[in-house]
Amino acid sequence: MTTVLAIDIGGTKMDVGLVDLDGRVLRREVRPTPAAASAAELWATLCGALDAVGDVAGAVALGVGCGGPMAPGGVHVSPLNIPGWRAFPLRARLAERTGLAVHVDNDAKALALAEGWRGAATGVRDYMAMVVSTGVGGGIVLDGRLLDGAGGNAGHVGHVIVEPDGDTMPGHAQGTLEGEASGLAIARRTGRPAAEADAETVARVGRVVGRGAASVCNLLDLRLVVVAGSVALGYGEPFFRAAQAEMDRLCLLDFSRGARIVPAGLGADGPLVGAAAVALRGQGTALGIA
Amino acid sequence: MTTVLAIDIGGTKMDVGLVDLDGRVLRREVRPTPAAASAAELWATLCGALDAVGDVAGAVALGVGCGGPMAPGGVHVSPLNIPGWRAFPLRARLAERTGLAVHVDNDAKALALAEGWRGAATGVRDYMAMVVSTGVGGGIVLDGRLLDGAGGNAGHVGHVIVEPDGDTMPGHAQGTLEGEASGLAIARRTGRPAAEADAETVARVGRVVGRGAASVCNLLDLRLVVVAGSVALGYGEPFFRAAQAEMDRLCLLDFSRGARIVPAGLGADGPLVGAAAVALRGQGTALGIA
Repeated sequence: MTTVLAIDIGGTKMDVGLVDLDGRVLRREVRPTPAAASAAELWATLCGALDAVGDVAGAVALGVGCGGPMAPGGVHVSPLNIPGWRAFPLRARLAERTGLAVHVDNDAKALALAEGWRGAATGVRDYMAMVVSTGVGGGIVLDGRLLDGAGGNAGHVGHVIVEPDGDTMPGHAQGTLEGEASGLAIARRTGRPAAEADAETVARVGRVVGRGAASVCNLLDLRLVVVAGSVALGYGEPFFRAAQAEMDRLCLLDFSRGARIVPAGLGADGPLVGAAAVALRGQGTALGIA
Repeated sequence: MTTVLAIDIGGTKMDVGLVDLDGRVLRREVRPTPAAASAAELWATLCGALDAVGDVAGAVALGVGCGGPMAPGGVHVSPLNIPGWRAFPLRARLAERTGLAVHVDNDAKALALAEGWRGAATGVRDYMAMVVSTGVGGGIVLDGRLLDGAGGNAGHVGHVIVEPDGDTMPGHAQGTLEGEASGLAIARRTGRPAAEADAETVARVGRVVGRGAASVCNLLDLRLVVVAGSVALGYGEPFFRAAQAEMDRLCLLDFSRGARIVPAGLGADGPLVGAAAVALRGQGTALGIA
């Protein structure tokens, strides 16, 4: 059976799987990311998961979604939450080990591909996918194409300014969406884990996420924002209600009125399906998105 | 000589010209827009300018930059500042009159093409062009392609939220860039023409324009914003200094740090060169931008 080998690399876990050409996850191995480990230990952990997936003879390519920043094309990766990898040559190492063509992209861009291929944005040519989790990231599909940008970083909605007089999180500009709505920012402001936020905080986070999303809908002539990530999905309905109310208040143009913000459709499969989509896009395979 | 027939339609004037394939304006006729006139009178004015330009036998196509909103492809136009034209079938009328292939697009998107072809963004694959004038508009080139968006309206930077607690201009959401920095907004707030603003107002307008531009640079991984329009160019150096200072404060990502905001390069030729670029893009001619 023709498959794609898919890897998702995050600060919490490394996920390796086989995905078929319809975007179904056939097999999967998950390893906790030894976040404080050396580059070699991290690599050994990833190789362990790869070996456990077993025979990949039917795989046409290998796709990777990885936390940024990274060099264009993922030639080197330096995931913010994995300090042991700085300018780690992930693509070359994986190509050497698997013999497959390897395609690497930002994990939020991968998720955007996944949601357009098989998720909540299937069949839509213009949308944004967001991840509201420890950090806030995103990927944008416009005119049926995933936006890359000069260095491959387009979609960084976490760095749109939503509260000009707001907080300044270390390493961030004042008032960015990430500095207001990420799990780290929420914990910093409330003094407890983001998951334990009170109703007032949940509504406030929904509001600023809706505001950032509204700016993007107005800017780019799009009407659908799909949101994944532990913070957004953990907060659930009250979060989405607050976000949608802010969108309704701020999207008043003929082309942005009625823009919707909805939960991502693929749940826990999103990252691996996205990594597979990165591979297929890299191979020039039609996904409905270029 | 091979040329392009170019038309720029705005609330103040209608500009018709011949542009060569190097983006030079060879001939030009300008008519004040009879803004309060009927659809037929507006059309007659445009035809008068077309006739005055004279022989267009060498023209390969006709390009139009026009104020929005418009239906996709400019099949119908309803320029905000020209009330006499509502759902006016501009493209079909011009095709019938000239016998040329006609391509219509938003004037700010046309300007973005012009600045990338012959202006301050020549050779750059990722940038935004803005117009800060009576209104605030824009066009974005990413990955070497002009962004269109679902209805052809991508680039509406005037509707990015820059002051969440700020003014609500009629017909606008609260705190949009256009509601804070457009000529109309400035006049509304200060009680005198935008051109007579004091130094404090100029600095404030520069700051919010820089803030909106910074959000876009962070979002889309671009580092160059070129600005045209009577308000921005009229305010000049103090405006650009304030805008750049805000960009420097807010563009802190590896890929956005050092982003620049500069005056457009084509001056008064920009709109006509942009209209010609719309035609060439429509014909599939290489401009360095797709």
